[in-house]
Amino acid sequence: MADINSKLEIGVTTGPIRGSRKIHVGDRKVAMREIDLEPSAGEPPVRVYDTSGPYTDPEARIDISAGLPHLRRDWQLERGDIEEYTAREVKPEDNGQLGPDRSGGVPAFPNVSKTVYRAKPGKNLSQMHYARRGIITPEMEYVAERENLGRERKAQYDRDNGNSFGAEIPDYVTPEFVRDEVARGRAIIPSNVNHPECEPMAIGRNFLVKINANIGNSAVASDVAAEVDKMVWSIRWGADTVMDLSTGRNIHDTREWIIRNSPVPIGTVPIYQALEKVGGVAEDLTWEVFRDTLIEQAEQGVDYFTIHAGVRLPYVPMAAKRVTGIVSRGGSIMAKWCLAHHKESFLYEHFDEITEIMKAYDIAYSLGDGLRPGSIADANDEAQFAELYTLGELTKRAWEQDVQVMIEGPGHVPMHKIKENMDKQLEACGEAPFYTLGPLVTDIAPGYDHITSGIGAAQIGWYGTAMLCYVTPKEHLGLPDRDDVKVGVVTYKLAAHAADLAKGHPAAKVRDDALSKARFEFRWRDQFNLSLDPDTAEQYHDQTLPAEGAKTAHFCSMCGPKFCSMKISQEVREFAAKQNSDSYLASEDLRGENTPEERAKNEAGMEEMSEVYREKGEKLYLPEER
Amino acid sequence: MADINSKLEIGVTTGPIRGSRKIHVGDRKVAMREIDLEPSAGEPPVRVYDTSGPYTDPEARIDISAGLPHLRRDWQLERGDIEEYTAREVKPEDNGQLGPDRSGGVPAFPNVSKTVYRAKPGKNLSQMHYARRGIITPEMEYVAERENLGRERKAQYDRDNGNSFGAEIPDYVTPEFVRDEVARGRAIIPSNVNHPECEPMAIGRNFLVKINANIGNSAVASDVAAEVDKMVWSIRWGADTVMDLSTGRNIHDTREWIIRNSPVPIGTVPIYQALEKVGGVAEDLTWEVFRDTLIEQAEQGVDYFTIHAGVRLPYVPMAAKRVTGIVSRGGSIMAKWCLAHHKESFLYEHFDEITEIMKAYDIAYSLGDGLRPGSIADANDEAQFAELYTLGELTKRAWEQDVQVMIEGPGHVPMHKIKENMDKQLEACGEAPFYTLGPLVTDIAPGYDHITSGIGAAQIGWYGTAMLCYVTPKEHLGLPDRDDVKVGVVTYKLAAHAADLAKGHPAAKVRDDALSKARFEFRWRDQFNLSLDPDTAEQYHDQTLPAEGAKTAHFCSMCGPKFCSMKISQEVREFAAKQNSDSYLASEDLRGENTPEERAKNEAGMEEMSEVYREKGEKLYLPEER
Repeated sequence: MADINSKLEIGVTTGPIRGSRKIHVGDRKVAMREIDLEPSAGEPPVRVYDTSGPYTDPEARIDISAGLPHLRRDWQLERGDIEEYTAREVKPEDNGQLGPDRSGGVPAFPNVSKTVYRAKPGKNLSQMHYARRGIITPEMEYVAERENLGRERKAQYDRDNGNSFGAEIPDYVTPEFVRDEVARGRAIIPSNVNHPECEPMAIGRNFLVKINANIGNSAVASDVAAEVDKMVWSIRWGADTVMDLSTGRNIHDTREWIIRNSPVPIGTVPIYQALEKVGGVAEDLTWEVFRDTLIEQAEQGVDYFTIHAGVRLPYVPMAAKRVTGIVSRGGSIMAKWCLAHHKESFLYEHFDEITEIMKAYDIAYSLGDGLRPGSIADANDEAQFAELYTLGELTKRAWEQDVQVMIEGPGHVPMHKIKENMDKQLEACGEAPFYTLGPLVTDIAPGYDHITSGIGAAQIGWYGTAMLCYVTPKEHLGLPDRDDVKVGVVTYKLAAHAADLAKGHPAAKVRDDALSKARFEFRWRDQFNLSLDPDTAEQYHDQTLPAEGAKTAHFCSMCGPKFCSMKISQEVREFAAKQNSDSYLASEDLRGENTPEERAKNEAGMEEMSEVYREKGEKLYLPEER
Repeated sequence: MADINSKLEIGVTTGPIRGSRKIHVGDRKVAMREIDLEPSAGEPPVRVYDTSGPYTDPEARIDISAGLPHLRRDWQLERGDIEEYTAREVKPEDNGQLGPDRSGGVPAFPNVSKTVYRAKPGKNLSQMHYARRGIITPEMEYVAERENLGRERKAQYDRDNGNSFGAEIPDYVTPEFVRDEVARGRAIIPSNVNHPECEPMAIGRNFLVKINANIGNSAVASDVAAEVDKMVWSIRWGADTVMDLSTGRNIHDTREWIIRNSPVPIGTVPIYQALEKVGGVAEDLTWEVFRDTLIEQAEQGVDYFTIHAGVRLPYVPMAAKRVTGIVSRGGSIMAKWCLAHHKESFLYEHFDEITEIMKAYDIAYSLGDGLRPGSIADANDEAQFAELYTLGELTKRAWEQDVQVMIEGPGHVPMHKIKENMDKQLEACGEAPFYTLGPLVTDIAPGYDHITSGIGAAQIGWYGTAMLCYVTPKEHLGLPDRDDVKVGVVTYKLAAHAADLAKGHPAAKVRDDALSKARFEFRWRDQFNLSLDPDTAEQYHDQTLPAEGAKTAHFCSMCGPKFCSMKISQEVREFAAKQNSDSYLASEDLRGENTPEERAKNEAGMEEMSEVYREKGEKLYLPEER
């Protein structure tokens, strides 16, 4: 295994995010980041939510063949309600019909444990179950600390109440608040007992808006190190959860590698693997194959399952009338099964049995919207809402067993129809967290669908959606590469943040204010470091003004030294401060706010930068390709 | 000049937009594009709005040293209210203190006319003036045809009424409707008499939402051919107007090149050039220098002027309290002038004289928001709204002389504060068109501000903003290059279209529906051609599946052949169509919708594509840089 290990070692991106320092806060040692500002700012560091796990911690030793430390194992054992047992044996079909010689296979995760955990008979491991019994778990404590973003340190908190559309975001998040939200079903903490590596996080509309990144290769599995790195790369830029949507061969082994190395919850769509097990023929799916797949993935540690149990037989003909039919893979598989057998969906029929499995491991439902609209034309139609109301019914059935639920949403929706989705979801599903894919607000921009969907995502996040599933620039066209994944994650992070601001989240505006102050005071490095993507911000700046002096210059390349509104505006401010507002005098003062020596020095520096600027400025607009 | 000419010849991008055919419609020969669909679609071509001018017309001869044909000259002469006169002489300071030897200068436009036009004494050339006297101009007829997008050809029009927030978009645009909108001040047709090359277009909330692209180099002028190409490049991708924000040397000559070659209205901020004329010292600005600049630019043919007449002396201290002060260049220049002289703004004081000039050439006001917020913290503050109400007052003063007006708006605004901007603008400015920069909905994503602002732009466009000023990825960081300009334009085009859809514009959804149908039917080429950026769409597709066969394959690289929801969904639809909804039978039918021969053929093709797909799929996620 040595060669494989060494190959895997180099396969993931590690090291601090530029300008950020990893910190561990409070009794539960909650991992966060702090961004130190330049001394001239005279301000404390800005604390930010951090999804990147140990990979950005210079103190952590990363060995993906060993996996991450088991942060949560002691907490689980202390509760006294879990039992060890021997895991289901891995079968060839778990890896997609890989032959007995494993040709074409990837290495199995080396330290895979044969012993796994589940609830003792009669017990329920769900965070919702503890919450409803009044128990504050360490997971809830962790979440509370994490969601606060150090907001208690802001003595004078400039809270803008925003417009939260009924969300009730507290000034300060306590563990009790987390418990209450989970008990009410308004938030979930996905946390499979077999994923003790996971840093607890909450999805709910009274918490920070979260984002999900999809990974997984839909062809035969790519190199496992690359697959693990996709996960590491997406959490580096801010993915709060990751869904492994792999199909094809090596699906079991690849997932093992991902989960063992993931500090964020992992979601899957088990029907994809079940379909592989029956050779890709939807009609051949059975409850038994599906159940076996759930157990297999539960034992590996998947934190939430997308289950398309709302695609019921009577709804299928509704979708046949559409412009774009059924665009959910899981939805179309189930629709085909229902039609072929002319029977009600086995997912719907066996829903309570699925719930039994979920509670034995604390897996959360992500009730899939198999009938989501795939085009503007199909938005908010009969098929979509028929399914949504069924998802509401299923939510209540899951809650009867204290199992955590979130609800998946669209899709393609024009702006004026977005709010109806949120309103109906809140009503139908009793405030269970909503988890939407975009929505895309127009169909006409393939190649830019991270943006068409980011527009919809920001809006539906504002209205109350708890987690936004990212879309990359390759949506509808091809498989995303590394750059696409980053662009998708950052786009969704900014959309989620815009939603937090608009909802009036009390800690959201701190970062905007810090960045804007840095911008106004020409603290370029602070501006880069405070941004969602410091590398790109600095790189864009340096394309025009690469000289080191430009990092402290009191202007930038856009307007140049003479036209810098920020510079003039600072002069205006200084002038106004010096004068009584009733006695603005005349021009010489304004030009002479510094001593003659200071002015001469400033002007010399400016002149030097202007030269750089002039030279670069001339060449900036690149020659076109013809 | 030969060498310069040949250099200029190669400087602009020409040729049809992929998949589109230039057409000229109706009596006024309105330039539009049509996208032909594959025969299997069984649908007529999709007609789209086209801003790209003759550059995308294979029949047109492009010679940027000659400029574009004078589409509007006859119309102007026929009205009998214009007079020729000899233009003001170009002075060295018009080109930014260029020495008498013109060293560092660019070539003057070769065919520059010494004879220019203006209104005869006592006449008013404004489209608003004609409109208020009941005259339907050829410009209004042109606009009406252009705005209809061939919608009268859709016999059965599937209109979704959307939510227009009080906009009154008609089913069909008549010239009389255009006249009425212009007369009421609810729309403008920027059309300087000295820009006869311009293809008339309207900006108003009952028309398609428009976008503006900014060009101009803030350093010493770049190569003029490159500058002209920036304009050509931005209109190719959909910019409805272009603002030349050049500063520095060569500013007059560069503008001449741009206007003579522009089929879209050109806007400027005259204060920038006026400041150059006084050596960059704001306090040295005078009404006389400014007036001289207005005449200079009026004679060149600038279609709208940004005038920051709302930055009044009493408002300046309000801005001094802000996190980011004054971020508008023009606003900060005027603030500095007001403070230095402790006098009311000369723009405000001389507003009616400015209006006299505007009406003599039919230049529209773009009343600048010099006090727009530059950060989330400063949004919707006292300074901003004080200025807005002054802009409302000035709007009415301009309307007294029948001069066209639009109002500039922010800036940086969190989502929950966007609507207040629109509501206050409508109220204060009597429904004069609103023209906003974004707004950016968060400050924390430099490098992605085309997206943070695209989110805000889509929303404010939906609420009623008539034109959206683009933001590129380089905003706050550096000067945009060619790729940035394209990304900015396409992002804003999709935001504007999303707004049209949400407002219920009757012709907007046609393109979404056509593209979605093409997607569902695997007409890949139609999907590319119908998109805002066919080149990028095809390129992204081909990164994964470059083989020619993939353009007709009934799946794509995202889900692969086995998991294609669209394919399964088509099978479901065919199956449902064959069966009575009460007698769905069993599985074999579903698998056997084709003859065995057809199935064998399809499967062989699919298998071949699957192989391509598998090979490519494995390598798609690129190795990371370390």
